[in-house]
Amino acid sequence: MAAANDQRVYRASSTAPVNIAVIKYWGKRDATLNLPTNSSLSVTLSQSSLRAYTTASCSAKYPPADGDSLTLNNKPHSIQGSPRTLACLADLRSLRQLIESSDPSLPKLSTYPLRIVSENNFPTAAGLASSAAGFAALVRAVADLYQLPQSASELSKIARKGSGSACRSLMGGYPLARDASSYSGGQWCHRKEVPSSECMQLTVATSTLFPSRAQSIVPERMTAIEKSIQERNFETFAEITMRDSNGFHATNLDTWPPTFYLNDTSRAAIRAVHDLNRAAGRSVCAYTFDAGPNAVIYYLEKDADCVLGAFKSILTSATEGWESANIKNTNSLEQSIDPRAAELLSKGVGRVFLTGVGGGPISKKEHLVSESGEILTTAA
Amino acid sequence: MAAANDQRVYRASSTAPVNIAVIKYWGKRDATLNLPTNSSLSVTLSQSSLRAYTTASCSAKYPPADGDSLTLNNKPHSIQGSPRTLACLADLRSLRQLIESSDPSLPKLSTYPLRIVSENNFPTAAGLASSAAGFAALVRAVADLYQLPQSASELSKIARKGSGSACRSLMGGYPLARDASSYSGGQWCHRKEVPSSECMQLTVATSTLFPSRAQSIVPERMTAIEKSIQERNFETFAEITMRDSNGFHATNLDTWPPTFYLNDTSRAAIRAVHDLNRAAGRSVCAYTFDAGPNAVIYYLEKDADCVLGAFKSILTSATEGWESANIKNTNSLEQSIDPRAAELLSKGVGRVFLTGVGGGPISKKEHLVSESGEILTTAA
Repeated sequence: MAAANDQRVYRASSTAPVNIAVIKYWGKRDATLNLPTNSSLSVTLSQSSLRAYTTASCSAKYPPADGDSLTLNNKPHSIQGSPRTLACLADLRSLRQLIESSDPSLPKLSTYPLRIVSENNFPTAAGLASSAAGFAALVRAVADLYQLPQSASELSKIARKGSGSACRSLMGGYPLARDASSYSGGQWCHRKEVPSSECMQLTVATSTLFPSRAQSIVPERMTAIEKSIQERNFETFAEITMRDSNGFHATNLDTWPPTFYLNDTSRAAIRAVHDLNRAAGRSVCAYTFDAGPNAVIYYLEKDADCVLGAFKSILTSATEGWESANIKNTNSLEQSIDPRAAELLSKGVGRVFLTGVGGGPISKKEHLVSESGEILTTAA
Repeated sequence: MAAANDQRVYRASSTAPVNIAVIKYWGKRDATLNLPTNSSLSVTLSQSSLRAYTTASCSAKYPPADGDSLTLNNKPHSIQGSPRTLACLADLRSLRQLIESSDPSLPKLSTYPLRIVSENNFPTAAGLASSAAGFAALVRAVADLYQLPQSASELSKIARKGSGSACRSLMGGYPLARDASSYSGGQWCHRKEVPSSECMQLTVATSTLFPSRAQSIVPERMTAIEKSIQERNFETFAEITMRDSNGFHATNLDTWPPTFYLNDTSRAAIRAVHDLNRAAGRSVCAYTFDAGPNAVIYYLEKDADCVLGAFKSILTSATEGWESANIKNTNSLEQSIDPRAAELLSKGVGRVFLTGVGGGPISKKEHLVSESGEILTTAA
């Protein structure tokens, strides 16, 4: 099949999910060994609403002078300017070479230029771990293109060279990142004012409150939240999630110079969640914020009416994303939300994403590169 | 002079300053013993722009059935509903009784009802330690009325029963509050959403980051900032002040449920200060925030043009308080302020107070109670 004048365009596509840390990871305790300061736990979101979609293609007919190329959200990106992407691709090529060496009948895909096209259907650099999803989809797509036999767990070690959180986006459910063996530091988003990777190290280096977080607070929380997930105890899960988000942002504020991710709208969301839980007499919802102002709000399916009903009633009709909501009864809990918080949320929230916990990357038959190698503008 | 049918109205008036903590005190480690969790250091501001003005009066002709009365900013306040005020007045009366017992020729002022009138010329409950200034002026005025011989330091022990910070408003300059012997926990402002005294104890009880702040971080900062003041090293003073403000607000965010005092405008002020200092290549200014969103910005007189010039140029002409500023040359440092921060400040800052470090309470000859005992609406 693989002739010397092979002109075929080889393609593979994959989507990858966003994941949201509930016990936050931040920074490396040893930059050389790439050891994180603490273990972490995240929740992988369903790809029905948020996902990175990536097609990896390669062909002997792609101009060798162009080298590997990356198109992200319809814009060309320099791979040469991204050492993290280069590192991922180099590892994947090496694994492909191993297969090619052991089976000479295989096409020498490792020698062909790569043309990679990726699209996120969510805002980049907004604290939604867009680059984590992006790197996870990239690694999964290239691994499929190269028909690599490695497991998701093995591939996660490659993906974490791209983004510390990407290894988690290669897994579904509640991926656990335990110390150095699981994953290490990385960069979440490229377009935030200060890259997360820099902020992380600044916090480790300068926050006087950070050592107690890394050394004792997070390890205790990890044990407790794992137990809460095993026991399906949402009350405990909710409290630990919210406390860890607050503690994480507290150490950012304690960084020198300080880093802020939460804004007035974020704080209004925090207030609203506490108000709702107080009114309900139990935790019906829980917030967490990654390195950005967007609130991620968890609730159990059984409380969807009560939680979504309350939030929908205080947001303006201009807020997008409610189409899929089927709210039967709001329980009037929205009355318990502080009016100033409600006003800030009404002004500040432009879009909601209603989604659930989901699985890892999904292989796709529709490609962002045509059979002849042209870049397509939208996923099928 | 003191007849049995004494119908005179005795009066004494005093102003007291606002003080701003630079090493923040927050909460008691022992509520019974009233021991603060850590020492603290504050700066007393000049009374030329911000002050509490209090007249204490007493008379045998005041109706005994009315008891002691307090008028604050032209509104009657219940003294019976304020155990802290009752405690201060009881102590001062006891000291007066001691003098009266030793000198029977003195009028028995301790048996007369008190009529106290107080006015703040600054926003209450806005994190400007209004009740600290109020209690300091109250204690000073009653002590003057009773002609008590006690020193400012002795009176501060009474004032701290009213407000933990009030003992500092009885002193000028850089009052130091060392452990339990100096002062203890109190309430800053009555009209903030959550009273400071409650928030303090919530932080002590629930913040996992707080113990390291109280046990090691603040003690180290206290030593370093005292040295910086002695050595007139503004660079060090500035960094410690800003770091302690951030660390203090970080532990509030880490409280369960979380407490927020900083808003988007506060954060814009923080950003602006860092931008200015970076552009200047040294610390020309430093921010600190007490339990409220208002920025207190310190600068040396020699840098007034540069700092005030930059802030004035980004604020709207509607911002009040610039009348006394005489800015010669702005040095164009305002160009270095992030445009979004400048916009937030322009929208969010309604008033500036230009002031300096100042002294303790000042006795006044003009009273808020007339010779015949009527409450006057404004200070002369």
